[in-house]
Amino acid sequence: MADGTLTTAPVRISILGGLGEIGLNLMALEYGGRAIVIDCGVMFPDEPALGMGVFVPDLAWFDRGTAAIDAIILTHAHEDHIGALPHLLRRARAPVYGTQVTLAFARRRLAEGQFGDPVDFRELVPRRPFDAGPFTIEPISVTHSTPESVALAIRTPAGIVIHSGDFKIDDSPVDGWKFDRERLGQLGDEGVGLLMSDSTNVERTGRTGSESSLGPVLHDLAARTHGRFFLSAFSSHLHRIRQVVEVSRKFGRFVVPLGRRMAESVRLGREIGQLQFGPGFFIEPEEAEFIEPRRLTYLASGSQGEPLSALTKVAADAHPRVHLQPGDVVVLSSRFIPGNERTINRLVNRLYKRGAEVVYDAVAPVHVSGHASRDELSELIALTRPRCFVPIHGEYRHLRRHFELAIAAGVAERNCFLLEDGDSLLVTADGARRGNSVPAGRVAIEGVDAGDPAVVGERRMLASEGTVTAIIVLSAKSGKIVAGPDLVSRGLVSGDGGSVHMRGAREELARRLRAMGTRFGANDPRVKEEIVRSLRHYFSDEIGKRPLVIPYVTEI
Amino acid sequence: MADGTLTTAPVRISILGGLGEIGLNLMALEYGGRAIVIDCGVMFPDEPALGMGVFVPDLAWFDRGTAAIDAIILTHAHEDHIGALPHLLRRARAPVYGTQVTLAFARRRLAEGQFGDPVDFRELVPRRPFDAGPFTIEPISVTHSTPESVALAIRTPAGIVIHSGDFKIDDSPVDGWKFDRERLGQLGDEGVGLLMSDSTNVERTGRTGSESSLGPVLHDLAARTHGRFFLSAFSSHLHRIRQVVEVSRKFGRFVVPLGRRMAESVRLGREIGQLQFGPGFFIEPEEAEFIEPRRLTYLASGSQGEPLSALTKVAADAHPRVHLQPGDVVVLSSRFIPGNERTINRLVNRLYKRGAEVVYDAVAPVHVSGHASRDELSELIALTRPRCFVPIHGEYRHLRRHFELAIAAGVAERNCFLLEDGDSLLVTADGARRGNSVPAGRVAIEGVDAGDPAVVGERRMLASEGTVTAIIVLSAKSGKIVAGPDLVSRGLVSGDGGSVHMRGAREELARRLRAMGTRFGANDPRVKEEIVRSLRHYFSDEIGKRPLVIPYVTEI
Repeated sequence: MADGTLTTAPVRISILGGLGEIGLNLMALEYGGRAIVIDCGVMFPDEPALGMGVFVPDLAWFDRGTAAIDAIILTHAHEDHIGALPHLLRRARAPVYGTQVTLAFARRRLAEGQFGDPVDFRELVPRRPFDAGPFTIEPISVTHSTPESVALAIRTPAGIVIHSGDFKIDDSPVDGWKFDRERLGQLGDEGVGLLMSDSTNVERTGRTGSESSLGPVLHDLAARTHGRFFLSAFSSHLHRIRQVVEVSRKFGRFVVPLGRRMAESVRLGREIGQLQFGPGFFIEPEEAEFIEPRRLTYLASGSQGEPLSALTKVAADAHPRVHLQPGDVVVLSSRFIPGNERTINRLVNRLYKRGAEVVYDAVAPVHVSGHASRDELSELIALTRPRCFVPIHGEYRHLRRHFELAIAAGVAERNCFLLEDGDSLLVTADGARRGNSVPAGRVAIEGVDAGDPAVVGERRMLASEGTVTAIIVLSAKSGKIVAGPDLVSRGLVSGDGGSVHMRGAREELARRLRAMGTRFGANDPRVKEEIVRSLRHYFSDEIGKRPLVIPYVTEI
Repeated sequence: MADGTLTTAPVRISILGGLGEIGLNLMALEYGGRAIVIDCGVMFPDEPALGMGVFVPDLAWFDRGTAAIDAIILTHAHEDHIGALPHLLRRARAPVYGTQVTLAFARRRLAEGQFGDPVDFRELVPRRPFDAGPFTIEPISVTHSTPESVALAIRTPAGIVIHSGDFKIDDSPVDGWKFDRERLGQLGDEGVGLLMSDSTNVERTGRTGSESSLGPVLHDLAARTHGRFFLSAFSSHLHRIRQVVEVSRKFGRFVVPLGRRMAESVRLGREIGQLQFGPGFFIEPEEAEFIEPRRLTYLASGSQGEPLSALTKVAADAHPRVHLQPGDVVVLSSRFIPGNERTINRLVNRLYKRGAEVVYDAVAPVHVSGHASRDELSELIALTRPRCFVPIHGEYRHLRRHFELAIAAGVAERNCFLLEDGDSLLVTADGARRGNSVPAGRVAIEGVDAGDPAVVGERRMLASEGTVTAIIVLSAKSGKIVAGPDLVSRGLVSGDGGSVHMRGAREELARRLRAMGTRFGANDPRVKEEIVRSLRHYFSDEIGKRPLVIPYVTEI
């Protein structure tokens, strides 16, 4: 614990990710040279076509060495909260805290991330506080779309700070793990200095609804399905999987996990007791081939239409073991993530064409979100009655609207802070104020330099306009052209060099170079400039394209 | 009219576009060597990042010359119904029919498409039938998101065929142009052989709601706006524009059209009497700079976040005349078209960051669709009681669900036809049956060959993996390398040739080429193969990328 003379110093909260985007969640609480870290997630790219892979938070903050890390605390098992853990552990070692389910997924993430060093995992149990440096952290059970999610109540020298994690208020949870209203209310009575709360669904009015509301819907769908019953959901959604398995058992259907990730999640869920079903109950795709359709349920990954997923293969009739037939029903039990709509549309159209009936959110209520809607967000504020408020987890517009909701819910406007990645907040016993900027950002982890804006800019241009390379070989002695200009193009016109446009462009370029005179040097910038100008001009006029022109001039 | 002996021959309906996608609407009705064409629309590309421009229907059907075209009939003014008219008129000349508004937009489309030949435009008036070859066509007024939309009742030798156009059933239309329930009911009494109906919103339950329901919402928003009031909508949505202008007049706000297309639509709307407001009422952005914010309404194009649109410029604070301030309100009054969500998200976040309040569908009911929901679709079937049914205008899944809806609404299953582009239907007085395939497809019109799958495939690869060109100059005499290998890359790694990866790749390639021996020919395929193999291998191992490799080998 910090000594008495320091208790009036502020607790610094550094926002390292997740405030300004969906994903990348990461923050640090720091006091007297000691710090704890909450979550460490990845983010999936905005423009998947540009091949940028997955983003992790910029971890430069951890290289400053100004605070020792006493704990890394994971609120739940989703990738946007645990996905960058291997990267963080390579920079900073500390015990990793999480509930049993969260740690099981975190271990899998470390294995995938080829992080082989021993890690000090410590299991979180709701209402059981633990100390880490100057902080005492109490996990509080909340409901969300993955089991054993928690909020955190953090006792600091500047008062109680509550971090909501991702949550909704589900009064009929599938697994009995409750949203702990009582404990949050007690903390509210005691006095909460700061609430940081999940903004993801702030645009939705009312309440989100219980996960268990899906049970009857799935039951009715399974009851009227004469063929095979397919359900696609996120593989970490063990509540959803549990409900499907329960319905399948009722109708005497075996459950077939399809796809590597789904099979792993089922195995994990059974290991940790989230899926308590006998061993003969789950079967392999190979075994399922000999069982009649009405006795089969397939659990498939790929609800976002991911190109290599099991469901995409099934829809294209390219799966070695599974071929759709009329009478089969496919349920897409997940949100259509913005940016994926066209891919999902294509998936749905293909499933229909194979004769299956397809059921998705627009058709029947087969999905329910894991995030709190406006009335639940207001309820959390009413329960905890915080002096200060910071909206977390969201794009700028979500944070802004949650900020406004908090003011409407009674938090003083001067005590509401609209922070973004790279901001910090100084919390004292009397209130809070903005601190200095901290290093924050995002880094692409697939493909070296793929996150470089210049490289991404080139990709964008290549994607929309194509490219043409112009090659000229000069004589070092005479300065004359001894070979070329030759043109090679990709993504621009059909038929490469032989096409009328490529021939026309080459002739035009040769004419321009002749007009420039007879002697060049390979390093003469005028030559490259003329190549770029001439070719962009030509293709713009002729075919309405401005390709990325690569001039190559060499001397021999 | 066809002679008596032919009346038992079928009417052939050829599906040339719009059944299997949203957009590209085009079909032909043919009898005894004469044909009429309904609509001729474009389609916006699935993957805009790949620079494919706009699609038009493949018009090969019109080159067969088996039927003379007596009429081209446009049901309404939207681009997905009139956009390909210049292309069609270059293939086939015929009188072009449309209501006053539709023809005004069609004329603009022809001017934009640089179609300068005289066109025989003929104005449609609801309930006023006209003859075209063996057909008698009666326009029937329907309600939709652009003024003066019509359905068509076509008397053919095989009975009455109804084409719904795009429609919803709006009982309180903004302009008094009604959905003509009465006339459709009379045709139902008389006996309808075939109904073809708009499937766009078949996934929505209930009814779509009236355009005029937006009036009070816009009124309340404008009433509480102290700064400038911005509204962004599709520029052809003259009903929406009319409502905004009415609200603005009420609150003493001048209306400033922003962006070329919006300014043109306002001008067009005033010319044809859809926007009956005095001349001093609309002002230019230049004039608006001297007027206080609370007296200004801006009508902006760009509700989909299009890169060059007025609203995107305003959001980036890059508009020369308009700079957002706190107190300004921006209303996005349109659907978020699938595939555009991320761009729109970025727009909304930027508008918020400039201090504006942003209002969109998730926040308040500021948009209403122009297409019929399920109850309205059922109502149209109940009104017309068709013997046969074909769902039109939609992706496969929409057509499939509309097909099922029609059966549920009482049309015999054997008389419901799930057709797609390239299918034809033979309609007789007794029923209908599938005909032979007809030529159909889509063609990209921006960028020569941009629709070529090979070119598009290259673009996709360039976008996700980048490109590297390898250049080798050989001596024609000795077969030895006299210059190179040199590498030039784009979209792959930072810093081009100087980077450690590019140097490593060049050394690796040089080593491999040396290992192959000393004499090559420039046309020796083994050299190019080795270049591609070696470089893809190197970058895949080193940075997880498989770039598009362009080998260039020349002799001097």
